[in-house]
Amino acid sequence: MTEKKFEQEINVKGHLIDSMILTKIFDNVMDLEGDFQVLDFHIGKRKKDVSYARLIVRGKSREHLNKLLESIYREGAQPVSIQQVSLKPVQKDMVMPDNFYSTTNNPTQIYYGDTWINVDNMMMDKCITVNVEKKRAECKIIRDLKKGDMIVVGEQGVRIIPQERPREGIDIFQFMGSGSSSERPTQQIAKKIAIDIHNTKVTHKGRIIVVAGPVLVHSGASEALAKLIQMGYVHGLLSGNALAAHDVENALMGTSLGMRTKDGTLSTRGYRNHMQAINEVFKAGSLKSMVQNKILKSGIMYECIVNDIPFILAGSVRDDGPIPDVITDIVEAQRKYKQVLEGAKMVLMLSTMLHSIAVGNMLPSTVKVVAVDISQPVVTKLVDRGTTQAVGIVTDVGAFLPTIVSELESIRSSA
Amino acid sequence: MTEKKFEQEINVKGHLIDSMILTKIFDNVMDLEGDFQVLDFHIGKRKKDVSYARLIVRGKSREHLNKLLESIYREGAQPVSIQQVSLKPVQKDMVMPDNFYSTTNNPTQIYYGDTWINVDNMMMDKCITVNVEKKRAECKIIRDLKKGDMIVVGEQGVRIIPQERPREGIDIFQFMGSGSSSERPTQQIAKKIAIDIHNTKVTHKGRIIVVAGPVLVHSGASEALAKLIQMGYVHGLLSGNALAAHDVENALMGTSLGMRTKDGTLSTRGYRNHMQAINEVFKAGSLKSMVQNKILKSGIMYECIVNDIPFILAGSVRDDGPIPDVITDIVEAQRKYKQVLEGAKMVLMLSTMLHSIAVGNMLPSTVKVVAVDISQPVVTKLVDRGTTQAVGIVTDVGAFLPTIVSELESIRSSA
Amino acid sequence: MTEKKFEQEINVKGHLIDSMILTKIFDNVMDLEGDFQVLDFHIGKRKKDVSYARLIVRGKSREHLNKLLESIYREGAQPVSIQQVSLKPVQKDMVMPDNFYSTTNNPTQIYYGDTWINVDNMMMDKCITVNVEKKRAECKIIRDLKKGDMIVVGEQGVRIIPQERPREGIDIFQFMGSGSSSERPTQQIAKKIAIDIHNTKVTHKGRIIVVAGPVLVHSGASEALAKLIQMGYVHGLLSGNALAAHDVENALMGTSLGMRTKDGTLSTRGYRNHMQAINEVFKAGSLKSMVQNKILKSGIMYECIVNDIPFILAGSVRDDGPIPDVITDIVEAQRKYKQVLEGAKMVLMLSTMLHSIAVGNMLPSTVKVVAVDISQPVVTKLVDRGTTQAVGIVTDVGAFLPTIVSELESIRSSA
Amino acid sequence: MTEKKFEQEINVKGHLIDSMILTKIFDNVMDLEGDFQVLDFHIGKRKKDVSYARLIVRGKSREHLNKLLESIYREGAQPVSIQQVSLKPVQKDMVMPDNFYSTTNNPTQIYYGDTWINVDNMMMDKCITVNVEKKRAECKIIRDLKKGDMIVVGEQGVRIIPQERPREGIDIFQFMGSGSSSERPTQQIAKKIAIDIHNTKVTHKGRIIVVAGPVLVHSGASEALAKLIQMGYVHGLLSGNALAAHDVENALMGTSLGMRTKDGTLSTRGYRNHMQAINEVFKAGSLKSMVQNKILKSGIMYECIVNDIPFILAGSVRDDGPIPDVITDIVEAQRKYKQVLEGAKMVLMLSTMLHSIAVGNMLPSTVKVVAVDISQPVVTKLVDRGTTQAVGIVTDVGAFLPTIVSELESIRSSA
Repeated sequence: MTEKKFEQEINVKGHLIDSMILTKIFDNVMDLEGDFQVLDFHIGKRKKDVSYARLIVRGKSREHLNKLLESIYREGAQPVSIQQVSLKPVQKDMVMPDNFYSTTNNPTQIYYGDTWINVDNMMMDKCITVNVEKKRAECKIIRDLKKGDMIVVGEQGVRIIPQERPREGIDIFQFMGSGSSSERPTQQIAKKIAIDIHNTKVTHKGRIIVVAGPVLVHSGASEALAKLIQMGYVHGLLSGNALAAHDVENALMGTSLGMRTKDGTLSTRGYRNHMQAINEVFKAGSLKSMVQNKILKSGIMYECIVNDIPFILAGSVRDDGPIPDVITDIVEAQRKYKQVLEGAKMVLMLSTMLHSIAVGNMLPSTVKVVAVDISQPVVTKLVDRGTTQAVGIVTDVGAFLPTIVSELESIRSSA
Repeated sequence: MTEKKFEQEINVKGHLIDSMILTKIFDNVMDLEGDFQVLDFHIGKRKKDVSYARLIVRGKSREHLNKLLESIYREGAQPVSIQQVSLKPVQKDMVMPDNFYSTTNNPTQIYYGDTWINVDNMMMDKCITVNVEKKRAECKIIRDLKKGDMIVVGEQGVRIIPQERPREGIDIFQFMGSGSSSERPTQQIAKKIAIDIHNTKVTHKGRIIVVAGPVLVHSGASEALAKLIQMGYVHGLLSGNALAAHDVENALMGTSLGMRTKDGTLSTRGYRNHMQAINEVFKAGSLKSMVQNKILKSGIMYECIVNDIPFILAGSVRDDGPIPDVITDIVEAQRKYKQVLEGAKMVLMLSTMLHSIAVGNMLPSTVKVVAVDISQPVVTKLVDRGTTQAVGIVTDVGAFLPTIVSELESIRSSA
Repeated sequence: MTEKKFEQEINVKGHLIDSMILTKIFDNVMDLEGDFQVLDFHIGKRKKDVSYARLIVRGKSREHLNKLLESIYREGAQPVSIQQVSLKPVQKDMVMPDNFYSTTNNPTQIYYGDTWINVDNMMMDKCITVNVEKKRAECKIIRDLKKGDMIVVGEQGVRIIPQERPREGIDIFQFMGSGSSSERPTQQIAKKIAIDIHNTKVTHKGRIIVVAGPVLVHSGASEALAKLIQMGYVHGLLSGNALAAHDVENALMGTSLGMRTKDGTLSTRGYRNHMQAINEVFKAGSLKSMVQNKILKSGIMYECIVNDIPFILAGSVRDDGPIPDVITDIVEAQRKYKQVLEGAKMVLMLSTMLHSIAVGNMLPSTVKVVAVDISQPVVTKLVDRGTTQAVGIVTDVGAFLPTIVSELESIRSSA
Repeated sequence: MTEKKFEQEINVKGHLIDSMILTKIFDNVMDLEGDFQVLDFHIGKRKKDVSYARLIVRGKSREHLNKLLESIYREGAQPVSIQQVSLKPVQKDMVMPDNFYSTTNNPTQIYYGDTWINVDNMMMDKCITVNVEKKRAECKIIRDLKKGDMIVVGEQGVRIIPQERPREGIDIFQFMGSGSSSERPTQQIAKKIAIDIHNTKVTHKGRIIVVAGPVLVHSGASEALAKLIQMGYVHGLLSGNALAAHDVENALMGTSLGMRTKDGTLSTRGYRNHMQAINEVFKAGSLKSMVQNKILKSGIMYECIVNDIPFILAGSVRDDGPIPDVITDIVEAQRKYKQVLEGAKMVLMLSTMLHSIAVGNMLPSTVKVVAVDISQPVVTKLVDRGTTQAVGIVTDVGAFLPTIVSELESIRSSA
């Protein structure tokens, strides 16, 4: 009798089997020691058909049932009877109501005012604010909350559109599994990625953002990245102080932290070159002014500036300097990163865990991500946080990026 | 004839053979394609005796000779005739004169006003400013330079005291090589480190600073670090947002990024716990106020607060939140780090590359450094940047730190 | 019309959703560009209920259909009308018929003589031989095939019982995901593993086999392994020359490759100790005779011998010596490994990729595997090849194994 | 007085400072708590001049002194009065006398019959046998010892010629430090290595041996290795079962362990392809017969066979099959490896720790070694065991080897 109170009828539709949605729903209920009963199940007869399931989920208490529902709603399930989303006002700047809804990075809708509203600007692990007049919803970070903002609380009235697994396509994201391993045919994969980069830009008119770390300069790939920018395949660069400082050092003195990038030998003034490069930027006032005054005449930063590509350098506590172009306040840097990422269709994460994780946190699950690093644990971490279409490549960026660029050159010359 | 102009007589004394000082001087001259002639060499007859060498160094040009001299002065060589240090004023805030002297992290003196003056506050890759009235010299970062500051330029009049290799001692820094490997007897090394921690505090009254990353909480070692603080072995904690957020989440909910730290299983609300922990800090206003209001009642941050141990949380672009206690401006965070490090005798770097490199850049070569990480490349990197007394241990901090703590407990109970 | 020829009706039952069996079947058909139609689907109403599906699978040609069927039969699907298994005789020793059936490591049955026969001795990537008189089937390696052996060919009449995902239990294999990461609570996981080891032996009377590499001695864990053997938790040891040589060196001279295992310092005779240890075994003739003659009085090998635990040392091309106890022919070593593994319920793989992969290839999917290594890629590799119940732990065996042992000690003292 | 008994006058000459020989001698004496006094020291005045030192070394006892001397003789020191080498006969096959001299991999001479005799076939950690009639000495492994062989015992009369550090040259071994890091300019280093390979073969007429693991095929570099063989740059291939099996699978089916090497996707028959490739070799009887029967028509093994390049495949316990060409007895495999290595001037170790360590153990310190792997700990391990001229490159062999080959092609076309 009493048990009846702690149950809820839910339904779900989509590629329940193929995209493992039903498996995940069952998993969640069982992991949480709940119970379920399948009331109805229509399986798609053919591979493109959609399936449908209706279940009763039972908990041991109201609280337990809520926990069960919360977990399965995140997989795309919905109560049979649609309910209005619940909102609560922020009582104090930067403080969410206790029961705040914590987002996934999947496309999300809320049921408000008798209609489903898309949530803009989806990111993981944030909250949703609703402009009740304009009937608009937006994903927001905690530091941007103002007193009075209306926040979604609880799980009611929120609908997630789980991402289908990509299939039957020709791009790299469709035929590579999510796994990452150093035991893959590197040259061939570079070729596929190059095609995908080209298509993203030329065919789909999509924005491509590069996130890069200083290892890129050290491993001799800065010329390749500069070329990639020159060729128009980069619509924004997200990085930090070290990449810019190494790039300037390389452009002015041919070294990176004192190592000659043309052969890997160490110059005797060692780290002094690094400090001198930083001092040159301070002297000029900014990278841009170095370019204008013809002090900086090549390299990654140079190409960004002459091609008018936005670059954001986020400060970090280990920075030497940092150079004046670095945004030393990291909350401000996050905002700028987010702006550059707006509308991105593809993100290349090149040998930087710090900045890549930052970016990963800001991406909706619909963006393609290519993560390249020589360390398998790093690649695994990036891909795991990532989107539905994330490819991890365990390789040496110093050998990989030049291959990508030369593939792009041959694509263009044959086009 | 003309060649005579491009030569310089230099001398050097110390443990030239044992500490490889002479080898490094020869190396530098040969690497730079210079020439040398040994004029005089007295070798220490017995192992504690000091050796002495006098050489003529020859370059191909004035500039080449300068390059040669610059490189060998950094190894401790000195011109036979002592010369006054050269100073130049800073023309603009945060801009060094071109010919600035770039520091090592070794103890350094400058010859100014007929006397050798110690340079305070030594750090690597910085410059030296001189207060000409007070006859004091100090190592400074570029962002702290003000117009009018007098800066050491060139290499003249600067003397470096190279660090002897530690020998015949009983502490871990003396009997372990600088190498790092996962193939070492972990339990035994933990024992030695524990003895050294104890001696640093109790016998030498030295300050011990811990640099720690969030993996520490994840790998189940937060109780051990809390205990270490409680026992009085920690005089300062340098970290970032994630450690504090994970620690609060662990204290309030028993999870770290949603993983239950008591058994490694995942809780279903996953990352929501993490966001909730961050929200709790925002609600209370600060970690301290959480402790005062009895919301936060255990853990690493709790122990820092109740034991009045300074902790600095430096922001990074990947931070969620970050919580209000985080210093979001990284230049400011660097200054605060530096303050806490003042007078440190030992630094434990626990599973964080980002903060450890930041700290490594600020340390003089006389501080003992213990770097612990599960990744050998990370440990190698930290130890290489490090001081003369750096020990790298490739192990799992989740198993290692508890062992250290239990060793310390038995040292104390037997004392 | 013609299409009709290239279709087949199949069915499958089990936890189709929960164990992702149906997902994998759909995956395979789609990946191979085949087509399917669901004829019937009954979903288990409650979580323990079994589901049932009946499908038509369509290919573009006979060959294509066979490929489709082959791939889905491996996931547990079966043709609606049961067919007899096909057999072909081996024409030449060590050569399989072209169309040989290549095994999985799952429990497998063949339909022969109107009945389902279990295949004994399941291993991955081997073939199945049938004794037609005794109606027994066995999994065999290629080198054991004799002319005239009857081999299963094609996919007909072979039934795989896919392993259910473990659920709702209390052992470590049930609540840890298959993922491996260094960011787990090490001490707590050690506790769980210890409980599982204890239960496997005491409650389930199961055999526990240890696979161990020389890093174990180097990292100071040999005492712990010796203790584990002494306590009766090890029923067989699979390793190579290096573990035994290091163990003997450690027992006789307190070093491992010249490194003192009590503190990690290097002894000056360096590798000579290693060669001397090997020579001592040659002198005595064998490890056993060293024990009998009281030359070897402690350590891992000593405990194996006095406790009568079988140990197999497989040779490898990098061996120094190898000592006389090593089986230098690797085909012979594989056979001996296999014998020791017979009936194993749990396998601990401790810091050796070479021997662990060898063992992984020989295990049916029903055996519990714990893989410990400091390198995440190694652990991932071992767990991926592994069984349904594989747990990977990225940690330092030198700290981990002693923790396991001390947990076991407290379990026993409290029992 | 009595102390006088425990001292010995020794001398040493060479690049004592530059090659750190004197530092190492001092190190050893101090580490062992011995004492020394420098009697005479002449330093080379110019950089190519040789230095000379004469010392008295003092121990606390006869045994202690012997330990001291033993350790410094290995660094090139010699007693002032030359003594005859001591020999003892082997009493039993494969058993060395207790006091056997354990070799380094440096060029070594023994003083026997009033003359210095070169020891042939130098390897690390072996013993020296002397043919007293022919006055020839040879380095031997323990398993090759026969009763009656005369073995060098003690340290007297053995002279080591320590290797100078390479300097002022143009090859990669001279300008790269011994360190290995992933943060090096990969493309540029590939260029240098290519030049060195070319010069070793063409200019110095030296033999080049490749040691390669299966990752090479997996990462898509098998075509590059095949090409390298075709171009005549490989004089021997040392590997194991997996490389050959993967190479055959790739040549016959375009996959490696079921992964398509043209794009990294997985074929559905998965590992079956691997087993089928192995079966094909068994069917043909050998790789050679596969080539003769035109079954195997491309790939690494094919090129070895048609170009008559010796290849040795050493068995390992994890082998599937192994194919008939594999030498399953590892002692026999070691002998064959050794034969192929005879007279080698350069060894390329490509992504295999097992076989590379085996080879490293067999090489004199005069051979150039290039070790390539994606894991830094592996590269460090290989380089550390290595020779004076070892270069470690942390990169992806799948991207690196093709670059080497294309550099070699351009060297040849421009020659």
